[in-house]
Amino acid sequence: MSDVISVVGHAAIDFLFDVEGIAGHNESYPIVDYQKFFGGGAANIVAAISILGGNSQLISAVGDDFATSGYEEHLDGLGVDLSLLFRLKGEKGTAAYVYTDPFHNQSTYFYWGASAKLKELEPPEVDFVHLATSEPNFNAKIAQKAKFVSFDPGQDLITYTRENLEVILQNTDVLFTNKHEIKRVCDMTESTFEDIKDMIDIVVVTYDAEGSKIFSDGAEYEIPVVPVTAVDPTGAGDAYRAGFLVSYVRGYPLDVCGKAGATVASFAVESVGCQTDLPTWDDMVARYESKFGAFPSLNE
Amino acid sequence: MSDVISVVGHAAIDFLFDVEGIAGHNESYPIVDYQKFFGGGAANIVAAISILGGNSQLISAVGDDFATSGYEEHLDGLGVDLSLLFRLKGEKGTAAYVYTDPFHNQSTYFYWGASAKLKELEPPEVDFVHLATSEPNFNAKIAQKAKFVSFDPGQDLITYTRENLEVILQNTDVLFTNKHEIKRVCDMTESTFEDIKDMIDIVVVTYDAEGSKIFSDGAEYEIPVVPVTAVDPTGAGDAYRAGFLVSYVRGYPLDVCGKAGATVASFAVESVGCQTDLPTWDDMVARYESKFGAFPSLNE
Repeated sequence: MSDVISVVGHAAIDFLFDVEGIAGHNESYPIVDYQKFFGGGAANIVAAISILGGNSQLISAVGDDFATSGYEEHLDGLGVDLSLLFRLKGEKGTAAYVYTDPFHNQSTYFYWGASAKLKELEPPEVDFVHLATSEPNFNAKIAQKAKFVSFDPGQDLITYTRENLEVILQNTDVLFTNKHEIKRVCDMTESTFEDIKDMIDIVVVTYDAEGSKIFSDGAEYEIPVVPVTAVDPTGAGDAYRAGFLVSYVRGYPLDVCGKAGATVASFAVESVGCQTDLPTWDDMVARYESKFGAFPSLNE
Repeated sequence: MSDVISVVGHAAIDFLFDVEGIAGHNESYPIVDYQKFFGGGAANIVAAISILGGNSQLISAVGDDFATSGYEEHLDGLGVDLSLLFRLKGEKGTAAYVYTDPFHNQSTYFYWGASAKLKELEPPEVDFVHLATSEPNFNAKIAQKAKFVSFDPGQDLITYTRENLEVILQNTDVLFTNKHEIKRVCDMTESTFEDIKDMIDIVVVTYDAEGSKIFSDGAEYEIPVVPVTAVDPTGAGDAYRAGFLVSYVRGYPLDVCGKAGATVASFAVESVGCQTDLPTWDDMVARYESKFGAFPSLNE
């Protein structure tokens, strides 16, 4: 099996606005400042994998502005394989517009754009795939073709049919959810958490500030967070997944994968934007060792 | 005096979003579709003047995206004189983000960007200037230098100090306001409408669907609207001003200037966007004649 991690989902432009107030019905507020960031779960993960030195591939539907916005140049420069992208002529790209007032209230508008077309597209065959927040039908189809499936339904869980969700879970080798999502997965499939753990080799559940837990083969690993001065929590989950997956592909034990994920996440929260200041493998190892002790060597 | 109409104010990008709902505090709504339009009052007016065959010049502060967004190419292609633009390196451009829900509720965020810097800039000397919505200090300075001043404070009236407003009015040859703004002008300067008419050669007051009135030298001209199927009222005022000013510079009588303005405005409201489907002089004359009868010839 190739060591390329193919990641399915969005490449989005995030527009983050500081505003004097959240504009309700027929209201208008000035924008104090704004910044444009490269985002979208799948793109955040491939960027982080590549910066860590892993081999990543983005499977996403993008519009004309993928090239004109500089996003293509950015990911290409990081070494992300873009050969399987669906480039949809005449479509606008996926984007999020997030308005934050001085009291940290947020108001968000999300545009699916090109990503909405994934539903009608035929996924490629890939070896190792991570399904980030994406279109449920496309995810269900690619999960059945791939040799190894990592699945992170995220907040889009509610958009899955029971059938799509079950097809994916039956093919899933690693499931990532937070504590709310794992309950919903159980509810939607009329399963217990024990059923899910029996069905899926590795289940990773995140608990925000309380860290994460990895359940596999009857064992349970508690992974604490790596405390830093957090500026922006957005992108922490994507960074965790990237750190976990790169370590996993390289053959590290599950607890090391989890700790590496937590370490990469700690970099992501230190600055605004999901793809800013992500660590190299050596950066990650250095911080990992300061928190968790010696990074293990692989017996190759 | 040159026949160039120099217009002071904003060149803004308008992002118009159709959304499933207006996102309040900590809410998120999908964007159904969106479109990007060239807008900003001053830029709307120079575009309309140029399409009508007049000579226009834009005096505005623009950021780096004026070139990258295609705005420069657009105005240059229309023949607008851009030689007096303040091109501010590292500044972002002026922009408006307007969200409209299925019930026509709107929520707007406005970014001044480069335009905010006008306050610190020294205006050029020009012959015939139209002051659109802009920065009050800059408008006050340029009004004192110009030979002929047309002034449209618009909804920014409230940002003027009494001193700035009075300096501009003392130098104003044509004042454009709507029925609310003229009251506010009187209040802010402790004047009666008679005082304003005595001070300013030509006062144009617009009354939405009831048309406009022109007051000059003791005379009063009632100008009806030109009825069309209105799709988007935005930009109607700017189009009126362009039609009025081009006709005025060409030497037509005031009632003809007003009717030409109303005619140009009727084109602007027929499509979404402020600079879409604006008329040439011949287009304007044809519709003018169908509504008002023969367009007069000038005795030159």
